[in-house]
Amino acid sequence: MSSAKRNLLVAQSGGPTMVINQSMVGVVEEALKQQGIDRIIGGLRGFEGMLKEELIDLRAESPATLNAVAETSGSALLSCRFKPKEKDCLDLFEIMNKHSVRYFFYIGGNDSALSASILNKIARDRNYELRVIHVPKTVDNDLLVTHHCPGYGSAARYVALAHMGDDMDNRSIKGIKINVCMGRNAGWLTAASALARQKPGDGPHLIYLPERPVTLKQFAEDVIGMYEKHKRAVVAVSEGISGPDGETFLQSEAIRKELAALGMESVIGMLDAFGAVEEASGGASRDSFGHIQLSGTGLLGDFLAAVLKIYAVKHKGMKKMRLRADTMGYPQRAMMGVASKTDQAEAREVGRRAVQYCMRGDIDGSVAINRVGEEGSSYSVEYYLAKLTDVADPSRPSAEQIKVVPASMINAAGNDVTDEFVQYALPLTGGLPEKGVLTFAKV
Amino acid sequence: MSSAKRNLLVAQSGGPTMVINQSMVGVVEEALKQQGIDRIIGGLRGFEGMLKEELIDLRAESPATLNAVAETSGSALLSCRFKPKEKDCLDLFEIMNKHSVRYFFYIGGNDSALSASILNKIARDRNYELRVIHVPKTVDNDLLVTHHCPGYGSAARYVALAHMGDDMDNRSIKGIKINVCMGRNAGWLTAASALARQKPGDGPHLIYLPERPVTLKQFAEDVIGMYEKHKRAVVAVSEGISGPDGETFLQSEAIRKELAALGMESVIGMLDAFGAVEEASGGASRDSFGHIQLSGTGLLGDFLAAVLKIYAVKHKGMKKMRLRADTMGYPQRAMMGVASKTDQAEAREVGRRAVQYCMRGDIDGSVAINRVGEEGSSYSVEYYLAKLTDVADPSRPSAEQIKVVPASMINAAGNDVTDEFVQYALPLTGGLPEKGVLTFAKV
Repeated sequence: MSSAKRNLLVAQSGGPTMVINQSMVGVVEEALKQQGIDRIIGGLRGFEGMLKEELIDLRAESPATLNAVAETSGSALLSCRFKPKEKDCLDLFEIMNKHSVRYFFYIGGNDSALSASILNKIARDRNYELRVIHVPKTVDNDLLVTHHCPGYGSAARYVALAHMGDDMDNRSIKGIKINVCMGRNAGWLTAASALARQKPGDGPHLIYLPERPVTLKQFAEDVIGMYEKHKRAVVAVSEGISGPDGETFLQSEAIRKELAALGMESVIGMLDAFGAVEEASGGASRDSFGHIQLSGTGLLGDFLAAVLKIYAVKHKGMKKMRLRADTMGYPQRAMMGVASKTDQAEAREVGRRAVQYCMRGDIDGSVAINRVGEEGSSYSVEYYLAKLTDVADPSRPSAEQIKVVPASMINAAGNDVTDEFVQYALPLTGGLPEKGVLTFAKV
Repeated sequence: MSSAKRNLLVAQSGGPTMVINQSMVGVVEEALKQQGIDRIIGGLRGFEGMLKEELIDLRAESPATLNAVAETSGSALLSCRFKPKEKDCLDLFEIMNKHSVRYFFYIGGNDSALSASILNKIARDRNYELRVIHVPKTVDNDLLVTHHCPGYGSAARYVALAHMGDDMDNRSIKGIKINVCMGRNAGWLTAASALARQKPGDGPHLIYLPERPVTLKQFAEDVIGMYEKHKRAVVAVSEGISGPDGETFLQSEAIRKELAALGMESVIGMLDAFGAVEEASGGASRDSFGHIQLSGTGLLGDFLAAVLKIYAVKHKGMKKMRLRADTMGYPQRAMMGVASKTDQAEAREVGRRAVQYCMRGDIDGSVAINRVGEEGSSYSVEYYLAKLTDVADPSRPSAEQIKVVPASMINAAGNDVTDEFVQYALPLTGGLPEKGVLTFAKV
């Protein structure tokens, strides 16, 4: 292949979102307009496929196909859970070199930004002209720098619409309802449940984020107190909810000790039983980073339900109550037909801008969104290219690579969000329907 | 109160749906047009509230409120899980008599139809002129006589949209994905996952309904076989999936014996651990009918995941695989913003027709929907009043009171639906978006 060619490569990585394809299509449609780009290549399955030279020709796709793909959940170029090592980056660099790739757009979260950063350094060290732009996506909304991440608004919309309906359901047939939401390290998505509230008394009545560790006793007292007040309680809980030692509930030694102190041996038995299953299956429920698998199982919800039911009987002298737990699961990031219009438009624009910044001469960076004007005023954003190392720096500890919900958005008791969060997040959902409620005029 | 008054009472019962309020508003708006009706009374919390004379004045509601309520999930008149006894029906009859109720509209499923039937008999025995019309609703779609139930189309739409997105997600990052869907006794809602398929190879790749008992071995062989074929598998499973003895998986003695035979002691331990929690909490996880609570817990999904993971390692010599289980939960019946337009319109019309039939002189019945023309032709329905005792007859055994998925809609292997089901159900969702997929042209 002639080294005079200037080819573009675009790929997707990590967990899909409802709008990650908007960004990919944004890259392609902007690239189609540019004179300086020869091939427009799609890299399949992120690093995993690209390292095997699984490459496709995106100029072959019709505008109609691209538009349909943009509206479809999942990663159209397929994805992977793969944390590349230095060696992988070197190998990918060689493949890029071979295919005369001069522009690389990597759509993903923190890990993708890190990989982009490493690739960029390799290219510079070798004097190979490569422009690497990171295009942000994540339902977790935990990327540094940008005001919010494409993908979050749609997932937040799902969580809000689900809680809005679930609250009406819970009002119809009273009881305690626990909803476990995605977000292992940051509470952004769980916090979005607050957007379901429109009238006084609306649920969720309590919201627990990973940012605020909690004891089982405090959790149980909160929930049962709310149940006694409203005769019902809808409770949103992050899958990353953590005990006083900062470990997630299912892994926390502090929580195990508290279970023993509260006389909840049967709940410890439940955790142990799950551990035994894990062992018998060869530890299949740990992900490639060694984390215990939290999304994709209902264990945390069932654990919380067990704790509450036993606590109510044993420590509050209550009789049996109606208690349900849902784990909101993959529809949060993948459901068709519920994406936020605002999120869709922004994700598309972020892809287009990535190509524009690249073609104007920027050699690396991560596209970021800035909200213009005050939170609470009419919603408007601007785009810019942030420094890649500000978004992801291999030399920083990983806990500092993520943006958590700030203290100002969490209430003092640590069991709800503040209005500042609502002002921040509501516009990202593209607007929500208004619930109708009867006035209940006496006969 | 003057006995010359002719008042109307409307109430809702059982699990809410996304469109149950459409039917209630349909009753009210039609009643507002009729000359012969004095008060339009809403009975709160079904039998539970009505027996306490919790009654509201629905003439006080504005058209704007009624329209907003119609678009809102949950039961606007609140609901209950309460199986009325003969005595309760007698008591309610007395309250109706006291409030000069001559027209009673009860929006609910099988139990509501039964209650309506009993009330009707009491009134006739006492020569009290009471017209009782049952207005059908249920996401389970298991009412006799009617072609389909209001509420089902919207829940089916949710299940289809969730599977459509989940299949794209699973295609992006391959693995096995189990989705547990609502429907304890009938597989209609789980079957709706098939509507997500648009192209060859699309998931769900397997569908399990309560209508077809299955062994664990057969289930595991099916799923792992599909995983080997596609390198992935999306599997929809009804919460009512049952073992060879006809009992649901978590309660089946046959399944426990099979677990032992397959050397899956750890999975038995998991079931026992949940049993111990249940015991410690005073059996709070049984519903008022004595059923083990199946919706509102993630146990079945986690159980199936455990079985598959261990089966793969132990009996197929496989290494660890990516396996996730979601329990679709309450969003199936309550999520805002995803209701089927067709279902909304039909639920409204069923409410209006109920009043029309009543005012033209019918003294009892259940409003039913009939599909006009062939399945597969353009969709059109007609409404009629079915005999209450055809829909719910207290003298019939309860297993005969529900409509299960017919054999012609289930494939021979018992692990999928046929095209006849798709033709039946697709129009009820109001149409689904088309997925966009790249052509994957080689570079």
